[in-house]
Amino acid sequence: MTQSMNTKSRVLVVGAGAIGSFYGAVLASQGAEVSVVCRSEFDVVRDHGFAIESDKLGNQVFRPTQVLRSAEDYQGGSPDYLIVSVKVVEGVDRAALIRSAVGPDTAIVLIENGVEIEAEIAEAFPENELISALAFIQVSRVGPGRVRHHAFGDLSFGNYPSGISDRCRQLANQLKDGGIKSMLSENVVTARWEKCAWNAVFNPISVLGGVLDTDAILSPPEGEALVRQAMREVGDIAAATGHPLRDGLFDQYVDGTRKAPPYKTSMALDYENGRPMEIEVILGNTVRAGRREKVAIPALEALYALMKMVEFRLKKEQG
Amino acid sequence: MTQSMNTKSRVLVVGAGAIGSFYGAVLASQGAEVSVVCRSEFDVVRDHGFAIESDKLGNQVFRPTQVLRSAEDYQGGSPDYLIVSVKVVEGVDRAALIRSAVGPDTAIVLIENGVEIEAEIAEAFPENELISALAFIQVSRVGPGRVRHHAFGDLSFGNYPSGISDRCRQLANQLKDGGIKSMLSENVVTARWEKCAWNAVFNPISVLGGVLDTDAILSPPEGEALVRQAMREVGDIAAATGHPLRDGLFDQYVDGTRKAPPYKTSMALDYENGRPMEIEVILGNTVRAGRREKVAIPALEALYALMKMVEFRLKKEQG
Repeated sequence: MTQSMNTKSRVLVVGAGAIGSFYGAVLASQGAEVSVVCRSEFDVVRDHGFAIESDKLGNQVFRPTQVLRSAEDYQGGSPDYLIVSVKVVEGVDRAALIRSAVGPDTAIVLIENGVEIEAEIAEAFPENELISALAFIQVSRVGPGRVRHHAFGDLSFGNYPSGISDRCRQLANQLKDGGIKSMLSENVVTARWEKCAWNAVFNPISVLGGVLDTDAILSPPEGEALVRQAMREVGDIAAATGHPLRDGLFDQYVDGTRKAPPYKTSMALDYENGRPMEIEVILGNTVRAGRREKVAIPALEALYALMKMVEFRLKKEQG
Repeated sequence: MTQSMNTKSRVLVVGAGAIGSFYGAVLASQGAEVSVVCRSEFDVVRDHGFAIESDKLGNQVFRPTQVLRSAEDYQGGSPDYLIVSVKVVEGVDRAALIRSAVGPDTAIVLIENGVEIEAEIAEAFPENELISALAFIQVSRVGPGRVRHHAFGDLSFGNYPSGISDRCRQLANQLKDGGIKSMLSENVVTARWEKCAWNAVFNPISVLGGVLDTDAILSPPEGEALVRQAMREVGDIAAATGHPLRDGLFDQYVDGTRKAPPYKTSMALDYENGRPMEIEVILGNTVRAGRREKVAIPALEALYALMKMVEFRLKKEQG
């Protein structure tokens, strides 16, 4: 009997899109009992599970223990880990989505983009352990129940508002056995701001230019200047909230992005494919934090205003 | 014999696109000898003239006295008025385009968008009278040699750098007889900055949102805020160059634009139709003036940077 406690973890993934089903599959491959709430593809996933294609980790079929339309249908007690990988867009009440499955010992794990996304959940579940995680991954849904893992996969996480619990370490171990590197972070809020300095800048810019790849963004000298200006503004906000970003981060982002083959951001891909864009959680929350902290953020304000116009146009076109 | 001196004026229009041919037609209708340089549609215009469709002024065929491929071919001396209505885009040397037709008594009339577009011509022809004109008109080319006048038509002009000469008044009279209202301006440079406060703001924004009409630009509260911020920046630049804009102008622009039926800017139409956009003359010159005058222009810099990225992408796509 060599199976560890870890491998018997009960996991519920709420919002089993590409990211949620990918990490769910990794944990399931290590013996965890992984269930999913997935509404739009319920029938396909119930009948066939998820087909996960990955050059890095191999192809696999992930058959969740329970396939549910709603967290209310979760059976057999409460999960040890409740992974929230719902896209944070307007009108989605994440607390309501998970409430009925959250037990007293459930650790809630947010694998979501953006900044300042934890407080809402922390306030709704003040007694529960909250783990905030950032996914560095390229993964996409390529068909009903079909997920393609393109590259990367690392997770960076820690407890909110700070610290690293035993549960975090257990989760990291399970993921590691499944081929996923975890970076445990004593201050995950700072880590979120660091990621935001890239995301809140490149994502909207890539949409505003009419789907620009990273090459088109950084090639004009004015382009790099705008990127750096907006990044500095994110850094100023982060510092004002008590989470100063590390020196050299912006150079690293610009140089790293320039050296990588040109690619389109996730927001540009959402825009191209008519999917909701994470404007509010990535850029809106950043701008609101900047206003609250009274930081000068003219470039971010301009990007945000332009994105709101795009959103207005799209809503109007969709009737 | 009631024909006035005015009606015998010799006029050469260089850059007979929609705007140039429209005003050329108006002057020809009042008896002026109007010739045109038009390269791309030379054959059609030589054989058939321009068909001008206008609900306001009536339909007419405008047959230029001389239809030329180049100003070098202009015959019979020099024109009294040389109208330059070439789109001011990168790589076009306007002085070289007109040089061979400019005589000692030729008044050069610039009917072109943008700010700080006169100095280049003033320096190239220091002995000639220079008239700078702004067209408030909606007019477009609808086919080879076919021009549609949609609305408006007023011209605002005066001498560069300032003043109103007899030649300006003569031109205004001729236009008036042809149905076009002229607003003579003692300080046409200020008038240019005033127009720029609308143009340098709404034009790029309309492109960056993926072709936004004025409704989509002003509907989100952040949209109006960005418009007003960028307008204030143009106003600061204009004031720094010694041309303070009049009080209430920005309110007038925002209110007027909001009240008008939603429409697309000229730059958005150029973008949609794959035509060169007047980024440099409208926005680039504004930004350069702001940098030169050391005015803080973060919103304009952001808009300019984004437009340079769009331009980069378009050039790349066109190979």
